[in-house]
Amino acid sequence: MHVVVNAAMSADGKLSTRRREQVDISGADDFRRVDELRASVDAVMVGVGTVLADDPSLTVDDPELVAEREARGESPQPARVVADSHARTPPDATLLDDAAETFVLCAEEEPPGHHETLEDVGATVVVAGENRVALPEAFEELQAHGVEDLMVEGGGELIFSLFAADLVDDLSVYVAPKIIGGREAPTLADGDGFVGDFPELEVAAVERLGDGVLLEYEC
Amino acid sequence: MHVVVNAAMSADGKLSTRRREQVDISGADDFRRVDELRASVDAVMVGVGTVLADDPSLTVDDPELVAEREARGESPQPARVVADSHARTPPDATLLDDAAETFVLCAEEEPPGHHETLEDVGATVVVAGENRVALPEAFEELQAHGVEDLMVEGGGELIFSLFAADLVDDLSVYVAPKIIGGREAPTLADGDGFVGDFPELEVAAVERLGDGVLLEYEC
Ligand SMILES: NC(=O)c1ccc[n+]([C@@H]2O[C@H](COP(=O)([O-])OP(=O)(O)OC[C@H]3O[C@@H](n4cnc5c(N)ncnc54)[C@H](OP(=O)(O)O)[C@@H]3O)[C@@H](O)[C@H]2O)c1
Ligand SMILES: NC(=O)c1ccc[n+]([C@@H]2O[C@H](COP(=O)([O-])OP(=O)(O)OC[C@H]3O[C@@H](n4cnc5c(N)ncnc54)[C@H](OP(=O)(O)O)[C@@H]3O)[C@@H](O)[C@H]2O)c1
Repeated sequence: MHVVVNAAMSADGKLSTRRREQVDISGADDFRRVDELRASVDAVMVGVGTVLADDPSLTVDDPELVAEREARGESPQPARVVADSHARTPPDATLLDDAAETFVLCAEEEPPGHHETLEDVGATVVVAGENRVALPEAFEELQAHGVEDLMVEGGGELIFSLFAADLVDDLSVYVAPKIIGGREAPTLADGDGFVGDFPELEVAAVERLGDGVLLEYEC
Repeated sequence: MHVVVNAAMSADGKLSTRRREQVDISGADDFRRVDELRASVDAVMVGVGTVLADDPSLTVDDPELVAEREARGESPQPARVVADSHARTPPDATLLDDAAETFVLCAEEEPPGHHETLEDVGATVVVAGENRVALPEAFEELQAHGVEDLMVEGGGELIFSLFAADLVDDLSVYVAPKIIGGREAPTLADGDGFVGDFPELEVAAVERLGDGVLLEYEC
């Protein structure tokens, strides 16, 4: 499976404010780029933190991009994937609507009943890991469901785990020309953090985009 | 006074690991650029957090740059400035050595005796603010001591306060192609963080430097 992580951060590395509410970090040019990236993959993934904070749809917006997918013999929309160990995704979350297929990755110890509730609203539940989603196993399962190209949109907890498990192939970051600040604001990679043997990237492209800068790395 | 903030961060916005120990984030090309920037200013500033974590000298390394300063009729080394409300800078800190003049900015409520200890080892103490250094006042005092061009090297607590007080003119960030991660690792701008009315920057230059990228902003 090929995994690209894509996110928009402030000049100081934040994905949102300390309030963890959705903030307009990128502009129209980046929105277009993200829509194209979504249209090019089999599935778009987030962590449950992002579902609870932003309730995103993760769907392709531009009808022409949707039509192009269909012309290629693909589903109109990429599938959606949530890393959600304890099945906390609310059954009325937007990404559980019928705009696209949705996979919820859970751990074995998720509370009784939650899993079934998600299946009742049409999600495909994938169980991997004891008390937290084991990403390598879960990704193998996604691959068995036909997901070869996966785009991960955040947040920082999930992105850190992906780097820790050496699962990231490419990283695209839109750096917005603003300061958010905050020692408790979410950043591009949170989790426990590395203290040595840092994952090393290679700069693949640097480009001005809108008012900001797009940095692309190979991992 | 003209204030330029300069720092090196990982691709995910971190200045160090969660252990707050010094990490080699930038490489030789960036070291050279920072040395030139130091040589071009009247003073180089850090917060006491950086003094306690890294014990930096903040001096210009290249003897030719030092000679050029002298040829311009300047002091061989730029002065050093620490934001240190409670005079916690250890009297044997490297930046209190006699390589250059050092200003310690304290608040009025600093513990009795500390202030005098710092003066005994040759520092110039500037008092501004009740229980935390009031940066605008302190900067006026520095200006009265001849500091017209100030470079701030971090850390994230101090940088946030400077943005909050609207005191930053330019920001240069070397972005290293590595992931540090960590929800508790220091970032380019920590503090309480903004929740709206984010300081907006303008991208002045984008350049590949060594293995990473140099982003320069006007604030
Ligand atoms: N600017 C952007 O591009 C962007 C993009 C996305 C999100 N955001 C912002 O980011 C914030 C949310 O980010 P976040 O970091 O709090 O949440 P997140 O990464 O979206 O989700 C983290 C959660 O995912 C679950 N998870 C399951 N398996 C995991 C694993 N192996 N590793 C890590 N997490 C796993 C964990 O909850 P369980 O233990 O319960 O499973 C964890 O708490 C929001 O403020 C949102 O607005 C911004
Ligand atoms: N990569 C880089 O370029 C770079 C550069 C510098 C530092 N670093 C790293 O950054 C970390 C240290 O950063 P930090 O954020 O903890 O510390 P910091 O910003 O260097 O210092 C913060 C301290 O300065 C004092 N201060 C006084 N007046 C202040 C004001 N008005 N606003 C804010 N602070 C004020 C405060 O202590 P009092 O309340 O006691 O005064 C505060 O705790 C270390 O890990 C270091 O290695 C990295």
